[in-house]
Amino acid sequence: MDHSTSLLRLIFLALGAALVLLVLRSAFHLPRGIDTPTTSLFDAAAAAGSSCTRFAPWGCRKGDRTKPKPKPPSHETDVPRHPLDPLTVSEINRAREILRAHPPFASSPSSLFVHSLALDEPEKAVVLGWRRGVDPLPPRRAVAVVRFRGEAFVLAVDLAGGAVTPLPVPASGYPTMTMDEQVSLCFAPFADPAFNATIRRRGVRLSDVACLPISLGWYGPTEENRRLIKVQCFSAEGTANFYMRPIEGLTVLVDMDTAEVIHISDRGAGIPIPAAANTDYRYARHMQEEGDPASNGFQKVRAPSMEPAPSGPGVELVDGHTVRWGGWELHLKADARAGMVVSRARVQDPRTGAHREVLYKGMASELFVPYMDPSEAWYFKTYMDAGEYGFGLQAMPLVPLNDCPRHARYLDGVFVAADGRPYVRENMICVFERYAGDVAWRHSESPITGMDIRESRPKVTLVARMVASVANYDYIMDWEFQMDGLIRIKVGLSGILMVKGTAYSHLNQARDNEDMHGTLLSENVIGVIHDHFVTFRLDMDVDGANNSFVRVDMARQETSPGESPRRSYLKATRRVARTEKEAQVRLKLYEPAEFHVVNPTKKTRVGNPVGYKVVPAGPAGLCRRHHCVSPIAGRRGDALVHHLSVALE
Amino acid sequence: MDHSTSLLRLIFLALGAALVLLVLRSAFHLPRGIDTPTTSLFDAAAAAGSSCTRFAPWGCRKGDRTKPKPKPPSHETDVPRHPLDPLTVSEINRAREILRAHPPFASSPSSLFVHSLALDEPEKAVVLGWRRGVDPLPPRRAVAVVRFRGEAFVLAVDLAGGAVTPLPVPASGYPTMTMDEQVSLCFAPFADPAFNATIRRRGVRLSDVACLPISLGWYGPTEENRRLIKVQCFSAEGTANFYMRPIEGLTVLVDMDTAEVIHISDRGAGIPIPAAANTDYRYARHMQEEGDPASNGFQKVRAPSMEPAPSGPGVELVDGHTVRWGGWELHLKADARAGMVVSRARVQDPRTGAHREVLYKGMASELFVPYMDPSEAWYFKTYMDAGEYGFGLQAMPLVPLNDCPRHARYLDGVFVAADGRPYVRENMICVFERYAGDVAWRHSESPITGMDIRESRPKVTLVARMVASVANYDYIMDWEFQMDGLIRIKVGLSGILMVKGTAYSHLNQARDNEDMHGTLLSENVIGVIHDHFVTFRLDMDVDGANNSFVRVDMARQETSPGESPRRSYLKATRRVARTEKEAQVRLKLYEPAEFHVVNPTKKTRVGNPVGYKVVPAGPAGLCRRHHCVSPIAGRRGDALVHHLSVALE
Repeated sequence: MDHSTSLLRLIFLALGAALVLLVLRSAFHLPRGIDTPTTSLFDAAAAAGSSCTRFAPWGCRKGDRTKPKPKPPSHETDVPRHPLDPLTVSEINRAREILRAHPPFASSPSSLFVHSLALDEPEKAVVLGWRRGVDPLPPRRAVAVVRFRGEAFVLAVDLAGGAVTPLPVPASGYPTMTMDEQVSLCFAPFADPAFNATIRRRGVRLSDVACLPISLGWYGPTEENRRLIKVQCFSAEGTANFYMRPIEGLTVLVDMDTAEVIHISDRGAGIPIPAAANTDYRYARHMQEEGDPASNGFQKVRAPSMEPAPSGPGVELVDGHTVRWGGWELHLKADARAGMVVSRARVQDPRTGAHREVLYKGMASELFVPYMDPSEAWYFKTYMDAGEYGFGLQAMPLVPLNDCPRHARYLDGVFVAADGRPYVRENMICVFERYAGDVAWRHSESPITGMDIRESRPKVTLVARMVASVANYDYIMDWEFQMDGLIRIKVGLSGILMVKGTAYSHLNQARDNEDMHGTLLSENVIGVIHDHFVTFRLDMDVDGANNSFVRVDMARQETSPGESPRRSYLKATRRVARTEKEAQVRLKLYEPAEFHVVNPTKKTRVGNPVGYKVVPAGPAGLCRRHHCVSPIAGRRGDALVHHLSVALE
Repeated sequence: MDHSTSLLRLIFLALGAALVLLVLRSAFHLPRGIDTPTTSLFDAAAAAGSSCTRFAPWGCRKGDRTKPKPKPPSHETDVPRHPLDPLTVSEINRAREILRAHPPFASSPSSLFVHSLALDEPEKAVVLGWRRGVDPLPPRRAVAVVRFRGEAFVLAVDLAGGAVTPLPVPASGYPTMTMDEQVSLCFAPFADPAFNATIRRRGVRLSDVACLPISLGWYGPTEENRRLIKVQCFSAEGTANFYMRPIEGLTVLVDMDTAEVIHISDRGAGIPIPAAANTDYRYARHMQEEGDPASNGFQKVRAPSMEPAPSGPGVELVDGHTVRWGGWELHLKADARAGMVVSRARVQDPRTGAHREVLYKGMASELFVPYMDPSEAWYFKTYMDAGEYGFGLQAMPLVPLNDCPRHARYLDGVFVAADGRPYVRENMICVFERYAGDVAWRHSESPITGMDIRESRPKVTLVARMVASVANYDYIMDWEFQMDGLIRIKVGLSGILMVKGTAYSHLNQARDNEDMHGTLLSENVIGVIHDHFVTFRLDMDVDGANNSFVRVDMARQETSPGESPRRSYLKATRRVARTEKEAQVRLKLYEPAEFHVVNPTKKTRVGNPVGYKVVPAGPAGLCRRHHCVSPIAGRRGDALVHHLSVALE
């Protein structure tokens, strides 16, 4: 529940870096217009990150400024070096050629729209059997989701032989929107005179309007068999933060295939567009135009006064996608839908030196963001950020120094535009060693024992990070690998709230606070109650692929009369899930349980199955929420696949 | 629930730094005997931390080794500079003189035992009104808890005038054990021939026995009106990690006042003492005696390869106890019972530059650790680590570089021995700026909007840390202050498990796994199921002392027919607690709620009360557990006092 009340509190304590956007001042105009997305090979926007961008007096030092901007790596000559390596630029081009030559698409290649084109990963057994530097790569195949003349196809493409094999198409649903669609649909309403008239009636210049494509959810069979989208618009006049200036109550229903406006719903009579003043969040603009941003109530931003400097071996990146660090070895890649995929995470056994399997494949599988306002302009806002918008497609280049620490290593993403051409998203993933000043393990002996022991080891970890900016929200996805073998997944929520316009400028105008479906954040701005559910797909391979899901329940056990001065205690009961159903868990706070992934075929010295613990993350900090932690396990081939919801951190 | 199954899994993945103690090898003997605690002014043990102690090739660099060891600060000349500053060495000496001269203690000063002696803090209004550098300090008073000839007294001591005023003594219960008692009681059993005979029957040399004083819990009125303790013993032969070698089933009941053995319970027939092999955890010993620790299965320990180096303003420490950093100002001190006390935490309003109150006083109020084994030798293990053992008394000097990062600042604790004399615990608290490579706030615009915006600010925070080593467990208490005004409390659990001996050396010998009350961790060693409950006392002063506790419940609300295509949504309901009872919360995972502390007398621009959100921490990571998060609020004077349980991280 992202109940924004709490956010409000912080704003008016003037404390929220995440919220400063609401207390800013700005006096400039935006560059106008909405560009079509780049499908050029190199993402021009990426350049923004490569020079010194840490604001504030301490961030940019001479060394940073004079460092020559490195030339973007050429991905044109990339070749795959690992069975799980993503499709390269030339492989994508090859797949495109094959698809466009494939009947029936060959009749009209320009009518072929590629919604997804990615590596068709080899079977697990093939990947596990492959030896680096010894074996040739297994045959490279792509799997494509395309639309052609209103029909969707799922196709396997053999890149060497050129064969195209149809795969089953799901009975319902539509493919992820292409970036091209997401952009072009924002312009669809402007072709409709009634829409333009509505905008003018509100006193907004058409050139100031910015729109977003909003997925519909599903509210009954009448909406089926037609690809539809709702478009909501904002005024970008006077601020880059148009999210704070909703043209409330105006919803345009658009056919995604024809770009035709089907219906305009206008329920916003009497709701003013919130003012632009104090909404811009760009630090550089403030520094430039206003002098000291702090004097305007802009949250003071502080660069670290302790900067990490190299003092030992760092992160090793082998063949572009294999990361080695601290006994860990794993494969890392960008993915258009999941954002980032971690594969074959293995950790070294200190006794034998051998690498032992932990995780075959892990990734975010969905982000579900339902808003809790049943009114006409809001009821349908139940975004699936990964499946509908593409979590990787929404990932922008990371900002060195600010998004990732100095000395981070970066990986690019290679994605596919609607026309099937490859494009590069630079600096999409960063990998770095983290030392946060924490303790990995420690023990001191107290005077009770008289032993003078002070043992302590610092906690050093490996972090792989990507950030998806799904319109207003920025999801920071961290996979953290600990020296003790634990993997933690952390999801940070940043960016800007999706707000609702209101006629109220003060709470004393509201008859019933609770009917606002949120909190009055500023004049004419309501933060609507909503939630962020993040689910992960974790294909655990603890010491091999044969894994079981074990639930350990702790329940009150009464003692027998005379057994003990204690009346009760908590007793653990282990249950191995035999079916998917049994592995579905509804967590209960006062009926504690633990969840283990074990390999029943591998036993420890004293006879316990080798295993791993799944720890559902709880809520912590500013923007994270009442967690709906529900690991759901299912079998996929011989592997146990977990979908684990974790809370945002 | 610290169900140790999960720990086991990790061990045999050979991954657990927290667990390496179980897979180590060692071949040396301990220095024998248990010393009485130091009551000298300077803690000799502190010296261990001041030189270069970071193991592993990268940790110790030349600069570290050659740095001269700083002379320990002399606290003899300390004077208080803030109304909340703890008692100084000379103030403690003065209080001791006053108490020893006070009738009836004057008749036999050596019979007076000081269980606690600490600053009697001035009233909040006095503290809030005091201006640094302008006003003299308010009168300094101490509050003492003493025992004299079997009777407990709570006394206010006026340090200037010398008056001693009796305060009400609680109707039941006993004061926190003194460190002297905790140590000396370990020796009590050896005076009993029956005990010594039992030890010898088990084939253990008396000189190898190490004992611990274990609080009794409360199991009925028969145990009342007598200060009792149970002593449990271990064999320290062949390892510093005697915790892994319990003399199982042997429990000695001792009268704390007479040191007399009242009862010996010996239920351990047939349970061998687990072997010493592979239990030692001291890295240096392994380096020294075995060459490469990793070759023995010792978890590889890695120093950070990125070390923080100063590049800007760091943490400012004013007058010894006031910390200033990043707009924050707070008072920090060591406390014998709570460990660390944070007072008057205020943060700068970026618009006005003024400091606004957030927290008047915050500290850990208790740590409750019940074990879930009803058998004779374990049923009573329900430790209250703060109230019974003294969380501050158990805090050992921090290990620079390993417990806290380079450039941390350290604060000492000044405590009081049973005879009333002061002693110093050096480097008990550290304060440092943390930069973990995280993002405080960020937003990128996606190609959908066509705006080329990449805003990101690094997350830099202030951390105040202390670590209490309550026998086997080490609690790492972090208070983290964010630039956005948020305070996070994190409790890390480290150290060694409290284990139980068993006749089983393999799981196949156990008839019913579940009746072990834990997990077979190693041959003859069971990790017993237990839990760690940490409660905090938070006296919030959000924008002033008048604060209310608000509960925001999110509940399913059905829509009316025709109201919306949605059938339901979550609706928020705010309830201001009018009584303590109403502020007691039983968290429910599927009935989400938020908790705010608001100042109803201060309103934001749009009319909401200024407030702060209380976020109960969830479980995350290795050793933290099913959280029992239950904020309990009570009124104390004009301030709302929260006891908030948080889970261990």
